[in-house]
Amino acid sequence: MMGAVTETKDISLLRINGQRLWDSLMSLAEIGATIKGGVSRLALTDLDRQARDRFVQWAKDAGCTVRIDEIGNIFAHRAGADDDLPPVLAGSHIDTQPTGGKFDGNYGVLSGLEVMRTLNDQNIRTRAPIEVVVWTNEEGSRFVPVMMGSGVFVGAFPLADTLRQKDTTGCSVGEALEAIGYAGPTPARHFPAQGYFEAHIEQGPILEATDTTIGVVTGALGQRWYDMVVTGMEAHAGPTPMDMRHDALLAAARLIQEINQVALDHAPDARSTVGWMDVYPNSRNVIPGTVRFSVDLRAATDEKLDAMDAQLKTVCDAMNKGGRVQVQLTQVVYFAPQPFDAERIGSVRAAARMLQLSHRDIVSGAGHDAIYLAQVTPSAMIFIPCKDGISHNEIESARPEHVEAGCNVLLHAMLQQAGVLA
Amino acid sequence: MMGAVTETKDISLLRINGQRLWDSLMSLAEIGATIKGGVSRLALTDLDRQARDRFVQWAKDAGCTVRIDEIGNIFAHRAGADDDLPPVLAGSHIDTQPTGGKFDGNYGVLSGLEVMRTLNDQNIRTRAPIEVVVWTNEEGSRFVPVMMGSGVFVGAFPLADTLRQKDTTGCSVGEALEAIGYAGPTPARHFPAQGYFEAHIEQGPILEATDTTIGVVTGALGQRWYDMVVTGMEAHAGPTPMDMRHDALLAAARLIQEINQVALDHAPDARSTVGWMDVYPNSRNVIPGTVRFSVDLRAATDEKLDAMDAQLKTVCDAMNKGGRVQVQLTQVVYFAPQPFDAERIGSVRAAARMLQLSHRDIVSGAGHDAIYLAQVTPSAMIFIPCKDGISHNEIESARPEHVEAGCNVLLHAMLQQAGVLA
Repeated sequence: MMGAVTETKDISLLRINGQRLWDSLMSLAEIGATIKGGVSRLALTDLDRQARDRFVQWAKDAGCTVRIDEIGNIFAHRAGADDDLPPVLAGSHIDTQPTGGKFDGNYGVLSGLEVMRTLNDQNIRTRAPIEVVVWTNEEGSRFVPVMMGSGVFVGAFPLADTLRQKDTTGCSVGEALEAIGYAGPTPARHFPAQGYFEAHIEQGPILEATDTTIGVVTGALGQRWYDMVVTGMEAHAGPTPMDMRHDALLAAARLIQEINQVALDHAPDARSTVGWMDVYPNSRNVIPGTVRFSVDLRAATDEKLDAMDAQLKTVCDAMNKGGRVQVQLTQVVYFAPQPFDAERIGSVRAAARMLQLSHRDIVSGAGHDAIYLAQVTPSAMIFIPCKDGISHNEIESARPEHVEAGCNVLLHAMLQQAGVLA
Repeated sequence: MMGAVTETKDISLLRINGQRLWDSLMSLAEIGATIKGGVSRLALTDLDRQARDRFVQWAKDAGCTVRIDEIGNIFAHRAGADDDLPPVLAGSHIDTQPTGGKFDGNYGVLSGLEVMRTLNDQNIRTRAPIEVVVWTNEEGSRFVPVMMGSGVFVGAFPLADTLRQKDTTGCSVGEALEAIGYAGPTPARHFPAQGYFEAHIEQGPILEATDTTIGVVTGALGQRWYDMVVTGMEAHAGPTPMDMRHDALLAAARLIQEINQVALDHAPDARSTVGWMDVYPNSRNVIPGTVRFSVDLRAATDEKLDAMDAQLKTVCDAMNKGGRVQVQLTQVVYFAPQPFDAERIGSVRAAARMLQLSHRDIVSGAGHDAIYLAQVTPSAMIFIPCKDGISHNEIESARPEHVEAGCNVLLHAMLQQAGVLA
């Protein structure tokens, strides 16, 4: 581990160039730009290649050496004074959803690049090297699984299997990587690092609603996803009295409220969502016989998630004992909660405080490459507000002053880990 | 009006031939029979023609004269001793749903025919004539509106407009009537009658559940149908805390429970049903932004229906004042409650009592030709149990002893109105 930070008065006054960062974001957003102001740039397409090429050129212009690994992850290396030390990493992704925005992912990558450019401007050498990483296919829109590049890097997915994954046209990940020239020689395997930092728009409403500039991300929520099937008996709405019904939708409505209560009982970080529902036979004057719906439970610790799971099962059991309908619950997805590293979280918080930026602890409800990285490298994330909490949407937006502020936090958090030669 | 019944000891012992009625039901069910044991015989198709032809032949064999009116309704007339007296009518329909059963409609028509055959067996002359009616297109599966023949007969629909209604292939009602030879010369307009009786399977679970043979139908529920739209804000399930959500499905779930309560608060006859629902964007990890659903309220009186409507609006107003979501309520259908005629109801009840059949008052929650007839003729209905309350389904079923019992009730109720010459 690195020792204490070597920080001078000058270093604490160091600031990134907000306009240059903003211009780079807008420049990268030209590749795959949509009429509605968003970006459509799916992983490993030719548009992705163009964006990768632009990033690689910028990294080389900044004096970096660039490695590409077997799953297409890009590592831009800025040498440290002791270049054998494990690097400090920053990064994210530059692939987007089909109707994505300009900031999701791109902000984390270009903030890392801006940190390097700022250090170059001031001729600052870090003791440890720093690297900016572009992770392949975070979004999972074209190829599953999501967070592919970081997942392979940490060993969550075997490389060979992942290269064989196909898109809907039958093109494999391996073929797509070859086609765009990003099937690199570097082993797609994690290596020692001083830490990993990822700056990202919040993709939620908390920072905006609380007028806070910086979210100090303490970890990611664990997730349990379920399928529920409520089986009653379809019957004519007219001739069937209320007390003789087996109304699957009425039962589902009760369950939805109980499921909502599960999260309220584990406030503040716990979440429960019913996002998808299918009603059968779905006819105005027929009492529904079968209702299927999804349940998404999230919590910051496995203890909480387990308690929520138990409460959900109790709710289902009670409904089944009622005898009006039958409820079937099947878990289909589990992601473990992932706390971030206390020291890296501390670096982010200290940087925000030093920069006199309003900040608060926050948990990530969504998936990010940092969540995989945290399995092998001490990691942390920096959130900035996004307009109306909207993301994965062409109207996704962030304010220039927030974009700049988050990058300044990244700069100082990275410097704290990398160390600066006076 | 007819005077008191002329009923002798012999008449009270009169019974229909249950086997003959059952055989006729099974015979008619051969036309359009499905592999699953049901009947698919849509209105004004060639299968409908075959069934009409068979009925007309049976009616002529029973000594009836047959009239066809302009909308294809069939009237089989059995002369009374005073044939100028208004007739006593019995009837229903013989068209079916695409996946219909053997009993819905057909039972009412063939019960009327069996009454005539029974009177013929015993050489009984009624004072007033009796007529069995086959109403055109009750189901509305091929041509809308439903209850077309009885609706035109009572003046609810203009004849000319109705004849121009088209099926999905562009064939009009008028063309279809011509094609099957049932565009009759008799004006499709109501005429004075001593009353109208319709025997029918309940299409609900009450009689079976209470082990009751005869439902004395006192009237039909009025109906108000609505469209509801709940508008919240779609957002990511992960990053959006519970207290910052505008979850349209959670709001809809609360509304569904309140809507259920509306009917419970107006027990026992009131009904409320949410049968149709559409969730947007309907994705597992997105909080629903918009939910649309149908509301179907039914009650036996307009006072109750109005009170239920007011309660529904109060529920919506409260939700709107909550401010989390916006609720929009639009009434799309209204059918007035239709009480049946006290004297004809009395005849049905008296017949059931005389026959020592278990019976109870019941309201019709579904639509029937009798509900239109009641607008112009004193009407009543007789319900018999159907298996599991299931109808509009190929597995629709009724027990022979119930089929026979209901027809005996029809016989004696009609005789009470028509009068019998000793």
